[in-house]
Order: sequence, then C-alpha cells, then structure tokens
Amino acid sequence: MQVSRRGIVDPFIVMDVMEAARAAEAAGRHIIHMEVGQPSTPAPAGARVALAAAMDGNALGYTVALGLPELRAGIAALYKRWYGVDLNPERVVVTAGSSAAFLLAFTALFDAGDRVALGEPGYPSYRQILRALSLEPVGIPASEANRLQPVPADLEGVAMRGLIVASPGNPSGTMLSREALADLIGFCDQRGVSFVSDEIYHGLHYGDRAVSALEISDDVYVINSFSKYFSMTGWRIGWMVVPEDHVRIVERLAQNMFICPPHASQIAALAALDCIDELEANRAVYAENRRLMLEGLPKAGFTRLAPPDGAFYIYADVSDLTEDSLGFAAEILEGAGVAVTPGLDFDPVRGARRLRFSYARSTADIVEGLRRLQVFMAGRAQA
Amino acid sequence: MQVSRRGIVDPFIVMDVMEAARAAEAAGRHIIHMEVGQPSTPAPAGARVALAAAMDGNALGYTVALGLPELRAGIAALYKRWYGVDLNPERVVVTAGSSAAFLLAFTALFDAGDRVALGEPGYPSYRQILRALSLEPVGIPASEANRLQPVPADLEGVAMRGLIVASPGNPSGTMLSREALADLIGFCDQRGVSFVSDEIYHGLHYGDRAVSALEISDDVYVINSFSKYFSMTGWRIGWMVVPEDHVRIVERLAQNMFICPPHASQIAALAALDCIDELEANRAVYAENRRLMLEGLPKAGFTRLAPPDGAFYIYADVSDLTEDSLGFAAEILEGAGVAVTPGLDFDPVRGARRLRFSYARSTADIVEGLRRLQVFMAGRAQA
Repeated sequence: MQVSRRGIVDPFIVMDVMEAARAAEAAGRHIIHMEVGQPSTPAPAGARVALAAAMDGNALGYTVALGLPELRAGIAALYKRWYGVDLNPERVVVTAGSSAAFLLAFTALFDAGDRVALGEPGYPSYRQILRALSLEPVGIPASEANRLQPVPADLEGVAMRGLIVASPGNPSGTMLSREALADLIGFCDQRGVSFVSDEIYHGLHYGDRAVSALEISDDVYVINSFSKYFSMTGWRIGWMVVPEDHVRIVERLAQNMFICPPHASQIAALAALDCIDELEANRAVYAENRRLMLEGLPKAGFTRLAPPDGAFYIYADVSDLTEDSLGFAAEILEGAGVAVTPGLDFDPVRGARRLRFSYARSTADIVEGLRRLQVFMAGRAQA
Repeated sequence: MQVSRRGIVDPFIVMDVMEAARAAEAAGRHIIHMEVGQPSTPAPAGARVALAAAMDGNALGYTVALGLPELRAGIAALYKRWYGVDLNPERVVVTAGSSAAFLLAFTALFDAGDRVALGEPGYPSYRQILRALSLEPVGIPASEANRLQPVPADLEGVAMRGLIVASPGNPSGTMLSREALADLIGFCDQRGVSFVSDEIYHGLHYGDRAVSALEISDDVYVINSFSKYFSMTGWRIGWMVVPEDHVRIVERLAQNMFICPPHASQIAALAALDCIDELEANRAVYAENRRLMLEGLPKAGFTRLAPPDGAFYIYADVSDLTEDSLGFAAEILEGAGVAVTPGLDFDPVRGARRLRFSYARSTADIVEGLRRLQVFMAGRAQA
C-alpha cells in the first residue's frame, strides 16, 4: 500500500537525543533529564483518589462528546478564578489533551490548502498536525526584541487564514503582555484571520500571570490542558473554548472524530481542579528550579537566555558556542551526562544555534545538572 | 470567525432518540435501552485493580507514541490466541480508541480529495471522519443476499483509493466469511486500493469466530479496540496493525497528532487481556440476550432480521411496518418505553425502513424490553 503525501511528516530531532539518553541509561550511566517537556510529579492525590472511588461504582462508559457537564462547569469556573472572566460552560469542549483540541480546531476552522501562520520558535507539532490535515504551515520568525513572540508587523502581507500563538511559549517560556496579545487579536480580527491561542502553560508563571485571549475577545479559539499545571500529561485530557456559534459544529466533529475524551481522565481532571495546594507546591518547586537555572546557567557559560516568564523551559542562544545544536546536545549528553534539547525542532533556521533546558524535574536534579554543566563547560573552554 | 467547509458534518440522527429517551427518564419514565452501542459492564475487575495499583507508584506521564511495549506485545499475542497468527509486536500501534486509529489510518493513507469507499449500511462516523479530513466517502450499497456486506461485484468500476470493511458489521452484526474477505482483499490488492479492516467487534461472535484480515494478508490496515469485547468504551483505548513499512510513518503522525494514548487506559488494557473468564461471562450474557431477541422480536412482528453473527446488534427490515424509521422509533419510545435506533445514520437510503436493536444490556432488560415491544406492537396492529 502507498503512503499519502500528507502522511510524511518530519521526525522529531529531539528523539535522537532521547534515544541516546535512554541507551546511556541502559548502559548503566546516570543521566539528568533537562530535555523533558513534562512534570515528574503524578496527577494530584485528590485526582487519583476520585478515580479510584469512581472505578468501584461507575462503568465509565462513553460520556457525551463535549465532556461531563460538571467538568465543563468546573473549567468555566477556573476562568473566573484565574482571570476574572465569566465564561458560559456551554463554550467549553473537553478534549483528549490539547492534541485533540488542535485536530478539532484545525478541521473546524480550515479547509485543505489553507495557510496557517505560527511563530518561530514554537511547538513543532503545530506544523506537523497542519500538514497531516492538508494545511500549509507558514512560519513567522519572531525577534528577540519581541521576546520571541510574533507581532503584527511580522504578519503584514502574509496570506493566511489562521494564526496560532502560544503564551507562555514553548520553547521560549516568554509571555505576551495584554497589549501585545490584544494587538495580535485585533490584527487578525480586522483581516478575517482565525485566532488560535495555545494557553497550555497557563498557571505556570513566576511573575505576572499570563493573559488569556478570552480576556480580550470571545471570537477566538483557546486551547488548554490538564497536562502541565495540573501535572497530568499521560492522562490525555485538555479543553478548548470556542465562540458560541461554533459549539454545535465542534460537537459534531468531536462525536465523530473522538466519540468522547477518556472518561477516567475526566473524573480525575474534575477533582484536580480543586487540588490547589498540591499544584501550587509543584509550582513553588519550578520557581526554585528556575531561580537556580537563571543563576547557574550563566556560570556554565550559557549567558544569552530568553526571559523565562512561564512554563518550565529556558531557551538559550548558544551561537557563541556552536553552530550545530544537535551535535552540541550530543556532546553535552556524552560529556556531562545531561540531556538537553537542540533548538532545531522549534525553529528550522535559528534552532541550530539554540538549546532548550527544561526545569520540570526535582530541585535535586536541577542542582546536580547545573553542577555537571558547569564542570563540563569549564573543561570544554580549556580544551 | 468562519467555519470550514469540511467542518460541517452531518448530525447523528440517533441523538434525537437518545435526547428523547433522556427527557422521558428525567420526567420519571422507565426506559429500556436498546439503542446503545456499548456494554453496560465496566472494564474487567483485573484491569481496574491494575490501574489502582499503578496510580500509587507511577507518575503515568507520556508513554512512547506507539504505546507501552508490553501492551503491544500483549496485543500481538492476542492474534496468536484468537487467530493463530504470528504477529510482530512492532506492527502494533496502540491508539486512543478506534477513533484515533481511523484518524491515523486515513491521514497515513489518503490525500485531500481522495475517494474512499465504504459499505452501506455501516458505522456513520467513517463518512464524517473522511469528510473532516477532506476525503470523499463513496457509499457502496450492500445487498441482503450478501449479508449486507460489500462484494467485489459491487466495487467494479468504482474509482477509489481505499475501502473500509467491518466484520462483524455495525448495524448488521453480519460477518464476512474467510472467502468473502479474501475476495475483497484480492480485489483491492490488484487495483492498488488500500484495505482498512474494522475488526472492533471481534471476540463477540455466537457461532464461528470472525476472520481477521491479517489471516489473509499483511498488506492491510487492521483496526480494533478494547471498547467492545473488553468492555472499555469510555477508556478510549484501541489499536491498529499496519504493514511493517508503514510503522515509522504512523509513528511520526501519532507523535504529533496524539503524543500518546492515555497511559492509565494502557495499564488497564494490558491487564484486561488476561481477564478471559470475566469477558467470556459477558459474552455468554450477550449470547443469551441474542437468543431471546431472535425468539422475541419475531413475536413482536419484527420478522425480517439480518443474520446476527456477531457484535450485539440486530438489524431489522421494517419496510412492512413503516417508511419512516425515525418516526417509528419515536413511536416505540413513546408507546413501549423502549429506545431503538432508526437505520438512517447507517444507510441514508434504505435506513428509513430499518431499525437497529442492541442487546448489550442485562438479560433482565432484554426480557422486559421484548415484553414491552410485543404488547406495544400487538396494540399497534389492532389499531
């Protein structure tokens, strides 16, 4: 059988690093993981207790396609808690992670051949999902002066049906201010460009909180997830907020494309919304890790860091150290026993001179990783 | 914002029936559910115990995109147990239900605009998922002489890039013999048509077992799920077997489109593979229900039944009773307190004169449902 043209998507370059890290561990080596994009903590205890209880008395069959009504209401209430926004729960679509939300959003908004813009650096799967759906990704290089986020001036004259923005961004951790976000939404609104706001790292901020696109407009798609702040990556549970007149369209797509999000994960997610103390304790760990990273990375020689407002990443410009981030990451893994991510997956051009460091693991791991990086880089400078 | 053309998919007509049933129950009425497409039993006890244990010590983060290696091996072993087939576990792709498997299969195999054929009557979401992916569904009316399954003669001269077949079928419950399945696979193979075999009801047979497309060819996509035989609908966990030279393509698509299937559901599914006694006890209930239905439906006046080889459905030709199956289903709900599914979702033409009865619920429900149907239909005949 033949494979389709759209089925041929790019491999993740980071997979090579992860495979090398796995092989090193299998050979008995101890590796510090600064390449991972997920918490090492489990779902909050309250979420696990709720699921254990539900498994006793509930068959956990299909739910309705848009998700359990009480979970949709709980998510709507989160918008009040986090942003002071009154959100109609009918606009909340529970999804199997932000992945399913992107599949739903892109099929609901765009037809085959449509061009959809995205800032670079950015989450590599946007591009690949768009291609798999016969859409054309249009990379918009974002400047460091604009905190690696796109601005209207970057978009002037770009033919596009949609724009995807992420704040805090991955890999950058940088956030859009309210004004910067409003400028982008206004630009798109005036031109009939659909605006998709990826807010998956909301909740994980270390100064001002992130601004939701829903604070600015109701005519946007907002995508979020229980993966990051709520520490539930493997549960594949997230959500999307859509304009009121899109709910029925998205509901029909969801019925056919997914039937429903995982029921067990919905039960756990509903309880996770109330596990504020445990989740804030996780955030305090990230905050301490971030402080250590901002202090320790420059000591190791990584001095050009994007402002890490949120998420759990620090994106470093290493153009003073290498023009081959893939080879450099392999060198660091081999020499320091620390796995880091080359920038190539996030930015096909400048990524060859960038590294992403994750601080999602334990503080002890961060301390040890920084120590190893400092020793290794000192040796490298002398060589 | 504008909605895409491909985002406009048909509503499920059955949803009107389900909403009417829900409203009747909310008003205090007792309804027997013969419209549902899922077991009323939970995941097997062993599966739930395994997950409860895993939640204690495992963060349940992302798994690799193709699924836990031990689950892939367990699924491969199922092919030995059920069919005597030696299957390389590397060819097994664990998915978030058969829904995710269809999304992966269709993007890996077909480009925008491609025509994909499917037998009618059939599972309505095939058509809608194809449309959402900018593909063109081509309905192939299947004859009663051929047990409502397509045969090569139906496909002569049909321009198509792919064919989807389901045995046992939904809504029909009819199965393809080994010879009939081999004829279809051979027909497609000669013409370069990709063959997708939906085997989601395998394990649920009441005479001879169903034949897997993998017993006939390795150059096919086979889609299956833990939803039906394994009684795990809401867990959204299934799998796909692909040709060896498609594994890497599908892996990259899965990494980007889904990241991974739900980890908790993978743990539960792995244990479910060994819960043979409980699952066979469920099947014995369906077998008894089926026996009662085949005895009781004709007594109620539903005499033209497709041969229900497997699954948990009986598809009835009610053209002697109505030309409006939607109205008839509403009448039965109102008059008998039994929810049944009109055929329109499965077959846009003949479905107006067909009803689907599900016997997935408890035997007590089936006995009561049949009693109600007999009383109601006797009164209707006299009126």
